[in-house]
Amino acid sequence: MTTVHFGLYGLGTMGSALAQNIAEKGFHLHVSSLHAEDTDRFLSKSDGLNESFTPHRSLTGMTKTMPGPRVIILLVPAGDAVEDSIAEARPHMRPGDVIIDAGNANFHDTRRHALALEAMGLAYLGMGVSGGEEGARTGPAMMVGGTQSVWDGVRPLVEAIAAKYEGVPCVDRVGPDGAGHLVKTVHNGIEYADMQLIAETYGVMRDGLGMMPAAIGDVFGAWNKGPLQSYLVEITGAVLNTDDPTTGKPLVEMILDRAGQKGTGRWTAIEALQLGVSVSTIEAAVSARVWSAAKPVRQTGEAIFSPLRESVELGTDQLEQALLAARIISHSQGFDLLVAASRAYDWSLDLARCAEIWRAGCIIRSALLNDIAAAFRAGPPDDVLCFAPSMVTRLQEALPALRAVVGAATSAGHPVPALSAALSWFDGMTQGSGTADLIQGQRDFFGRHGFERFDGGAGHHGPWAD
Amino acid sequence: MTTVHFGLYGLGTMGSALAQNIAEKGFHLHVSSLHAEDTDRFLSKSDGLNESFTPHRSLTGMTKTMPGPRVIILLVPAGDAVEDSIAEARPHMRPGDVIIDAGNANFHDTRRHALALEAMGLAYLGMGVSGGEEGARTGPAMMVGGTQSVWDGVRPLVEAIAAKYEGVPCVDRVGPDGAGHLVKTVHNGIEYADMQLIAETYGVMRDGLGMMPAAIGDVFGAWNKGPLQSYLVEITGAVLNTDDPTTGKPLVEMILDRAGQKGTGRWTAIEALQLGVSVSTIEAAVSARVWSAAKPVRQTGEAIFSPLRESVELGTDQLEQALLAARIISHSQGFDLLVAASRAYDWSLDLARCAEIWRAGCIIRSALLNDIAAAFRAGPPDDVLCFAPSMVTRLQEALPALRAVVGAATSAGHPVPALSAALSWFDGMTQGSGTADLIQGQRDFFGRHGFERFDGGAGHHGPWAD
Repeated sequence: MTTVHFGLYGLGTMGSALAQNIAEKGFHLHVSSLHAEDTDRFLSKSDGLNESFTPHRSLTGMTKTMPGPRVIILLVPAGDAVEDSIAEARPHMRPGDVIIDAGNANFHDTRRHALALEAMGLAYLGMGVSGGEEGARTGPAMMVGGTQSVWDGVRPLVEAIAAKYEGVPCVDRVGPDGAGHLVKTVHNGIEYADMQLIAETYGVMRDGLGMMPAAIGDVFGAWNKGPLQSYLVEITGAVLNTDDPTTGKPLVEMILDRAGQKGTGRWTAIEALQLGVSVSTIEAAVSARVWSAAKPVRQTGEAIFSPLRESVELGTDQLEQALLAARIISHSQGFDLLVAASRAYDWSLDLARCAEIWRAGCIIRSALLNDIAAAFRAGPPDDVLCFAPSMVTRLQEALPALRAVVGAATSAGHPVPALSAALSWFDGMTQGSGTADLIQGQRDFFGRHGFERFDGGAGHHGPWAD
Repeated sequence: MTTVHFGLYGLGTMGSALAQNIAEKGFHLHVSSLHAEDTDRFLSKSDGLNESFTPHRSLTGMTKTMPGPRVIILLVPAGDAVEDSIAEARPHMRPGDVIIDAGNANFHDTRRHALALEAMGLAYLGMGVSGGEEGARTGPAMMVGGTQSVWDGVRPLVEAIAAKYEGVPCVDRVGPDGAGHLVKTVHNGIEYADMQLIAETYGVMRDGLGMMPAAIGDVFGAWNKGPLQSYLVEITGAVLNTDDPTTGKPLVEMILDRAGQKGTGRWTAIEALQLGVSVSTIEAAVSARVWSAAKPVRQTGEAIFSPLRESVELGTDQLEQALLAARIISHSQGFDLLVAASRAYDWSLDLARCAEIWRAGCIIRSALLNDIAAAFRAGPPDDVLCFAPSMVTRLQEALPALRAVVGAATSAGHPVPALSAALSWFDGMTQGSGTADLIQGQRDFFGRHGFERFDGGAGHHGPWAD
């Protein structure tokens, strides 16, 4: 196999960390950034690794002078910066060269780029990278979309820098063109839901049980030794147990409750709507971020209604079980979206492999994901994760707690949008005969839409149509 | 003012009804349809009005032979059919001529068409029409987007065929280009939510109180004389009180619980996500339609979990109050989206006028809308409908019932996704200090995103960043 030469463009937080990771694994790397000062700063921070880097003053300069075949890894913000980078590099690339977009791209953009570059004899991989700065530096999880042969060419490097789960690299080609970025988007959607579910559980402890941050942090610490074991539960404990160096108070009490979002949660919800899939816990998490951003409006609402936040009668063991049930359900919804996308785009996604990739390196890594991978290897009924035997057992044990928590929190005025969305999904998706019979009756009444009957046939109308 | 000549293309259910309405109001109308047989059938059904119609064999034929200035009203399915119709008519149109898209278009398409046609000296109005077949025939509510002068030219006809509320036509120009279709889309989103909330209330009565359809229909009939008075509550009573002519059973028991959707509810949810607005009850309604379509999956779920649907201790007066509270909240969310769209697209939407238009003729017409119009005339705090004094009074009275219904239903296993989404929204939007402090701590921990502090400034990091 020809030796390929790697260049990385974009030495921000993620790009710098990934470049150092690549060098540490013994690969030589050409590097450049939009501002040459960033390249200088990067080199000054990379003591001991600098022999591995060939710096360039620009993407054009790097692409022109790198020996071929070239693989250019982009780590620039999704959207315009990706467009600009491709436009800049492309004229200097030759057949067989590869661009890898390792940012958080919208997978529709990735599909478009892959098509356009392939038509020019160039290759394009869309690679989702998860794990934050630390993951990028020491081993992220990565989801790759592109053609098999192009993947084979870059695989030795990418597998070397990836996180490992019991020795298996947490990276793979999951499908063509945009598949990797879609899987990463859904990963982020699940991450949104998980963070929101954790925040709601924290809220019930804080406002319903009157617990202090450190005590709540200890609960999360304990949960991290059980079935909820996961990176997000672990860092929740760490955050809640951190004091503010300035005031000595719990740090979380000094943080303004206004959360940002960068788009991937929203993209997950939009893609689900486009494909006719319900990801209601993820939608609830995106909505909750919107509410959080509207802090002045919430303050107006509180002043007007003076709502009573009452105490609740719940044990932390019930909260643990409720969180577990809702986490299983939100993962199930995320995988429903992967199933639908795989069908819509003809990707043949290996769902078990996606779950395996997420077992280490990424933000949603958890003990649960190993069981999820096993569940998909066995193939759950109707491709629904919640229907897999191992998940059924857990849900049957944990659902009474989820009901108790949602019931107590909604009675006492504590917002639990994602927990209750998860429960509603479960109740809806285990109801063989729902209430859409009435909706179909209404739609036929006012719009002559017609309905199906239990005794057969479609396009029936009620007697009001006469 | 010059006399304009009207032509209508597309004699399906809605187009035929609207054409007859126009003729009945004394206007002459050119008509044509994709298939000439449809025009023949239309004429054969329109006894007594046929002198008012000049039939044509095609859109091209109609456009070429109609005297100018021409106003072509399209009533064809959104999407390709609209594109094709514009492409067909345009070459035969002259400066000053107008195309009105009276279908359920995506407002982004309407914006695009308006721009393109205006660049050619032609005019384009996007007009949302609500009321189903009966409304179109006897007086629909209509929401128009376009330039004021073009609207002035067609206004006499459009006002003549509109529904009237105490003599005031339920139609107006609400803003430029796509504004009318966006307002119609949000109308449909609110309609989705209202239908789902009604269906959930029906489900609690059916499965939690063990009531028969006719008894439930009587409850809706009684509610229609109170604060819930509305077209949808009225027809719910009618549907539930209808027997199947074939079996003699309640008709609703013969209707398959699998609901269709045509896209406008989904568009509402997508536009809200794009604009950073939470329309969680509408999202829940769209999700519930998705679940309804997955009947075999629900049957699998029921077989696996054998979930217990228990009886609930609730009075129908509590259900009435819960439905009222959730209806106010879902309207508030819909208007939040109108506020955001008005800002994003610089439309200066008159929210009170939108509510007034909806008071008669359309599917969501209700007693509530007159109060909503008054609330927006006065201007609610932070532009949030729920914060208007008249709504605050109702919500404070009705919220305990909403809490009781959601608590009882979720405990007993009856899915109430939209009712609980409405309650969660209320609890979230009246919580001055939420739980996103923890989320911001997590985001900084794993991604160095930075956070704001209560004591000032942004871009702070926790000590874990050291």
